[in-house]
Amino acid sequence: MKHENAIHRLKNVEGHIRGIERMLDEEAYCIDVIRQIQAAQAALNKVTSIILEEHLNSCLTTAVRGEDPMERERVLKEIADVFDAANKV
Amino acid sequence: MKHENAIHRLKNVEGHIRGIERMLDEEAYCIDVIRQIQAAQAALNKVTSIILEEHLNSCLTTAVRGEDPMERERVLKEIADVFDAANKV
Amino acid sequence: MKHENAIHRLKNVEGHIRGIERMLDEEAYCIDVIRQIQAAQAALNKVTSIILEEHLNSCLTTAVRGEDPMERERVLKEIADVFDAANKV
Amino acid sequence: MKHENAIHRLKNVEGHIRGIERMLDEEAYCIDVIRQIQAAQAALNKVTSIILEEHLNSCLTTAVRGEDPMERERVLKEIADVFDAANKV
Repeated sequence: MKHENAIHRLKNVEGHIRGIERMLDEEAYCIDVIRQIQAAQAALNKVTSIILEEHLNSCLTTAVRGEDPMERERVLKEIADVFDAANKV
Repeated sequence: MKHENAIHRLKNVEGHIRGIERMLDEEAYCIDVIRQIQAAQAALNKVTSIILEEHLNSCLTTAVRGEDPMERERVLKEIADVFDAANKV
Repeated sequence: MKHENAIHRLKNVEGHIRGIERMLDEEAYCIDVIRQIQAAQAALNKVTSIILEEHLNSCLTTAVRGEDPMERERVLKEIADVFDAANKV
Repeated sequence: MKHENAIHRLKNVEGHIRGIERMLDEEAYCIDVIRQIQAAQAALNKVTSIILEEHLNSCLTTAVRGEDPMERERVLKEIADVFDAANKV
């Protein structure tokens, strides 16, 4: 299955977040909770890396090697956009 | 219940991530998946903000107003540490 | 001149940072200093966006459309790498 | 002199940025330029850490230990605000 690794990692993040809910429920120390949220975000960064790499090597490569200049421009613009968005989360 | 708002938001993030798994399963466009991951991370930032604010107004205030200089130093150091970690996710 | 816009913006950031040094010298309020540093970092993000966009539309497009698979792989790997690094600053 | 370390580091960042302008001027490879910008941003993060730590141990401690509840609230709110802003650069 395609994306198997990414899906597996997302399932882990889901479990991680359920664990953080439990920590809050059991009134764990706030700073420990924040550290766990930051760890979940780092795990999500890793998923983004995996998907981006797949995208660069498939869709983006196809579009850039293709003969439609607008399609080429569109996929390159998307990379620039997700890069900007990455700087804001 | 304390932390009700934060727990509610985490449950939403959990659902969001399950939705992203489904997107991958159904071979959604990679860039759309990445955007959803970034949105989930932004939602987690918001949870961190809420918990940090509670922490500053309770534990941190108590420790800083208390008479144990080592405890005071410890809580202030923790704030500096989570701030540094925030710059790395 | 190529990169004129980026160079102009970097010169502004330089001036901005000199201003921050002056603020520290004159014992400005720490939080105001931190806000100015964050503004300088946001201005640097903008410079990165501009340079990345130029790169995607020139070097990367040439390499991906070229016939050397290793060169193609190399430029795509670089994009993935700067994306990962962006998540860490 | 107070803040000597922070000012020294800012002067280094200034020089770093001048070097990046030169790289652009001499048409250095875009990805190398972006990596240098990211390094300058990481150096600015370090300056923020230093100033934040000073602030926590001086102004913030004074305000939180003081008897003015509005002032206390104000300094705690500022910490929450710069934390949120840090997540957006």
